[in-house]
Amino acid sequence: MYYFNAWHSEYKQPFGAIQVGSVMNMNFKVTGGPAKVKLIIRRDFGQRHEFDMQKMDDELYSVSVKFDVGAGLYFYYFEISEPSDWGVVKHYYGSGDLGGEGVLYMAEHEIRPYQITCISVPDPAPDWYRESVFYQIFPDRFHNGNPDGKINHPKKNSFIYGTQADEPFYVKDEQGHIVRWDFFGGNLQGIIQKIPYLKELGVTAIYLNPIFSGTSNHRYDTNDYLEIDSMLGTEEDFKALVKALHDEGMRLVLDGVFSHVGKNSRYFNLSGDYGDDEGAAKNPNSPYFSWFKFNDYPNDYKSWWGIVDLPEVDKDNEDFQAFIYGNPDSVLDKWTASGIDGWRLDVADELPDSFIRGIREKLKTYPDKVLIGEVWEDASNKISYGQRRDYILGDSLHGVMNYPFRDMILAFLRQELSAHDIAHQMMMLKENYPEDVLYNNLNNLGSHDTERIISMVGEDRHAMAVAMLYSLPGVPCLYYGDEAGLTGLKDPSNRKYFPWDNIKEEPYQAYKGWIAKRKAEAVLTKGDFSVFYTGDVLGILRFDEETVFATILNPTDRDVTLYTEDINCLQNLSFAKKLAEALDEKVMPLGSAVDFKMKL
Amino acid sequence: MYYFNAWHSEYKQPFGAIQVGSVMNMNFKVTGGPAKVKLIIRRDFGQRHEFDMQKMDDELYSVSVKFDVGAGLYFYYFEISEPSDWGVVKHYYGSGDLGGEGVLYMAEHEIRPYQITCISVPDPAPDWYRESVFYQIFPDRFHNGNPDGKINHPKKNSFIYGTQADEPFYVKDEQGHIVRWDFFGGNLQGIIQKIPYLKELGVTAIYLNPIFSGTSNHRYDTNDYLEIDSMLGTEEDFKALVKALHDEGMRLVLDGVFSHVGKNSRYFNLSGDYGDDEGAAKNPNSPYFSWFKFNDYPNDYKSWWGIVDLPEVDKDNEDFQAFIYGNPDSVLDKWTASGIDGWRLDVADELPDSFIRGIREKLKTYPDKVLIGEVWEDASNKISYGQRRDYILGDSLHGVMNYPFRDMILAFLRQELSAHDIAHQMMMLKENYPEDVLYNNLNNLGSHDTERIISMVGEDRHAMAVAMLYSLPGVPCLYYGDEAGLTGLKDPSNRKYFPWDNIKEEPYQAYKGWIAKRKAEAVLTKGDFSVFYTGDVLGILRFDEETVFATILNPTDRDVTLYTEDINCLQNLSFAKKLAEALDEKVMPLGSAVDFKMKL
Repeated sequence: MYYFNAWHSEYKQPFGAIQVGSVMNMNFKVTGGPAKVKLIIRRDFGQRHEFDMQKMDDELYSVSVKFDVGAGLYFYYFEISEPSDWGVVKHYYGSGDLGGEGVLYMAEHEIRPYQITCISVPDPAPDWYRESVFYQIFPDRFHNGNPDGKINHPKKNSFIYGTQADEPFYVKDEQGHIVRWDFFGGNLQGIIQKIPYLKELGVTAIYLNPIFSGTSNHRYDTNDYLEIDSMLGTEEDFKALVKALHDEGMRLVLDGVFSHVGKNSRYFNLSGDYGDDEGAAKNPNSPYFSWFKFNDYPNDYKSWWGIVDLPEVDKDNEDFQAFIYGNPDSVLDKWTASGIDGWRLDVADELPDSFIRGIREKLKTYPDKVLIGEVWEDASNKISYGQRRDYILGDSLHGVMNYPFRDMILAFLRQELSAHDIAHQMMMLKENYPEDVLYNNLNNLGSHDTERIISMVGEDRHAMAVAMLYSLPGVPCLYYGDEAGLTGLKDPSNRKYFPWDNIKEEPYQAYKGWIAKRKAEAVLTKGDFSVFYTGDVLGILRFDEETVFATILNPTDRDVTLYTEDINCLQNLSFAKKLAEALDEKVMPLGSAVDFKMKL
Repeated sequence: MYYFNAWHSEYKQPFGAIQVGSVMNMNFKVTGGPAKVKLIIRRDFGQRHEFDMQKMDDELYSVSVKFDVGAGLYFYYFEISEPSDWGVVKHYYGSGDLGGEGVLYMAEHEIRPYQITCISVPDPAPDWYRESVFYQIFPDRFHNGNPDGKINHPKKNSFIYGTQADEPFYVKDEQGHIVRWDFFGGNLQGIIQKIPYLKELGVTAIYLNPIFSGTSNHRYDTNDYLEIDSMLGTEEDFKALVKALHDEGMRLVLDGVFSHVGKNSRYFNLSGDYGDDEGAAKNPNSPYFSWFKFNDYPNDYKSWWGIVDLPEVDKDNEDFQAFIYGNPDSVLDKWTASGIDGWRLDVADELPDSFIRGIREKLKTYPDKVLIGEVWEDASNKISYGQRRDYILGDSLHGVMNYPFRDMILAFLRQELSAHDIAHQMMMLKENYPEDVLYNNLNNLGSHDTERIISMVGEDRHAMAVAMLYSLPGVPCLYYGDEAGLTGLKDPSNRKYFPWDNIKEEPYQAYKGWIAKRKAEAVLTKGDFSVFYTGDVLGILRFDEETVFATILNPTDRDVTLYTEDINCLQNLSFAKKLAEALDEKVMPLGSAVDFKMKL
């Protein structure tokens, strides 16, 4: 009776996110009789707007709407009014959970609407970034570059692991607080020494977890934003790292942790390590005093998620903003000027939109820098602290760490969700994200904050995960050691020391092979993206005018034969039929990723 | 009415412990009328023997008893029968809690008797031992001898402290089990390098905590009795240590830990570290299988005090005895032949008497070796597992670690017990211990198993504790770092790393001075021992035919003036009066140890 499909060009043009000023054309089909159809658009947290749809022929109703009322999110659905034996009946048609084709609703308040993301300006990340093959390094755990294996400046009351093969372990007290930090002693010289290894693997850029002075092994508890942690090396070592990377045509992105500081930092100084009269907790006249919020001075203070090690900073404080990015010699300036290529903002949710925009503004004064953020969900419609966030509407983050793609890869390879469901989820993400953002996102199979991929999907399906990482749109980022076969669940077992003496051949070759493929096939970096599915199999499609590259994944425990008629595309792609025919009777071996290239 | 004093020669001769075959003369005084007096002697856990006492004059009753019925403990008291208006009345006279003078009892079952320790043979330790000034080293915490500070062969899944100033810390799980061992990395080369330091201090012998292969930092969980722990060094390093010590005229005593082994030892091998088919827990046909007792093979086994890390060994097992001391190439032979000067037996309570005697027997085949044991109480009358122990009756231990003296020193300096009470306790220990044993015991102010002395008595009274350690009979043993001013309560804070860069002058000079004094005054090593007390002050007396050396201690917070009439000796010493007169009006400054020497 009623039909609409947000992913088909017959019903909606253009696809996906739009820019302010764009015109959106919508067609809605009603079979079986006369009706009045309205397009209803709700502004995010705002008003309801009705647009009458024009009857174009027996079945089709149509309307064009110009989006010139500002960037943001819009939510739409359809209202159908039909005469009946007993007055006029109203139906509503909105998105189901999986998007694309919709669902009929009886009551307006029950509707799940479709989303339109409307951006202010296109916001492509620098070309180098888009073309990068990233590698994430957790510096304490990568490599110790000292020839004698000595640890640089171990911290007081900390532990050093006995051997590099030790299982990471948190030293906690009875209340579960970490009371001694544990270190392996990786350092910046160690990274420099492993640049040839990374080059051989095909890596072109590094995302480095925090390297500024801190107390913990992860250094998210910054003690001094202007100082390299002495266990990692000196500022000279840092400069040498930047130079060595750039000499090899490689890039470096740093972790910016601006939501909170360490309790024993220069700024807070609870312990007095920085002197008896310095820092907010020791001196109410400290220049840093206004950064923090004390409930009861000095021991009761606002801290990040209640973790007392991490006093929270008031990001609306102008002194703090000036210190981080506003001043000419701000933290951002110091390190960006030293030649790094971009920043990853830790807990972007906790940073006000204006703070992120301020950082972006400053970053624009340097050429070709990238700004990505830690957001765990679909960043297009994230709400944090009751506020819709505008991370990706332009002039804020270029992109985010793409954990939703990781979730989909895991759910598919662990056979928790079907190819059908995963295909729909991927398409929804494509729909919601501005095109630039989809290509700006930093994709991963895992990070220092998640389980390792091998431990989640098993060795058998690991190569499929790798195939997906390097086939999906966005910038792929390999978490150090995944390529060596490291296993581990959440922190701390996902932070083992890199097994330099025991790099497993199978995962290593899987990564190396797919990195090479991604570099050889431009369509994997720049091509459009779509998906298909059968009962068992998922196809990731990357394509341009000339080529279709399909990565086809069979997560089951048996061989699967493809048949043309089983292959479902979620978009009405011009080459869909040809592709489906080309794949007819192709056998997908059990638990495999097969890539298939077709010239158009 | 009635009087006896076990410490006065008028009433009992000889003083203290005796040898089998000795004759004991006893006098008992009754004033006020005729009586019948019997000496009652009970054999330890044995029969009651009555000896009639002869009336010698108006007041004195006397008897001589030959002790020719075997070594062991005897307990005695007196039974007095007197006529009265209403039949004959019996009274009993036995020891009070503090010994010496006795107490009257109405009922025989309430009596606390006096003790006589009767030994089989005199058992002096070698001269070198008696004359030694010992120093105890916990090897992980003393000194790292590697020029670059590297740690030898850190163990898998262990932690190394970040800095040598770190506070020791146990890494435990929620059940309180230690899950990672913590190391500073001291080693044998480190000890070798510090021999000049020890010599300068005056030390002549070292008691070394375990050095055989183990898992923990204390190495009481032996993994291989025939191997030096690789973190400490090699067997070459060990031989070099023995040679370096002997070259300087110094001696070495090792810790023998034979009650239990490590669960991952070569013998038990629960983890399989020693191979899949080796050790009792992996192979029921292992030659070590019979050493252990399994409740449910292999995971439920008898362990030391229920600590699963430490499977208990059956010390009555002949294979184990042969391995430890019986075979020509036994553990005891291997290390004794390598030149060490003696052994300290860990948890001697847990070793059967026959096992200790077996060790002593083997040790006799080497000249001049000493055997001491870990016993925490008065070893003369210790009962363990329902058995009276014969550690010190001859041909077993030469002596024990003298924790009772430590307890008395602490109680006195912390003013928990009066000079009167402490004097009596010291005298009881002198009475109970065979004379040789009193001089064979290894005295201490603390060890790896106790709080550090400075933390117990404070810096102010520390020098008094030092004076007591070097004035009391027995061999003084300094726990590493006490002389440097280390503080700490029980394990682990009593096991800090030696503060080589921060040796405190005051404690260092206190030890150095008293060690020099002990060496200069032979009477402090070889002289007889007694005590005196006043209301506030304790005097430790060491004397021979020519000299009395008195160490006089004022633990109060004010100056104390001695007066002749206040000075009480607990024995009827010939020089008592002369000494009391010599001390008349001497002022003891507050919180001080004063030494006073008098020629006889």
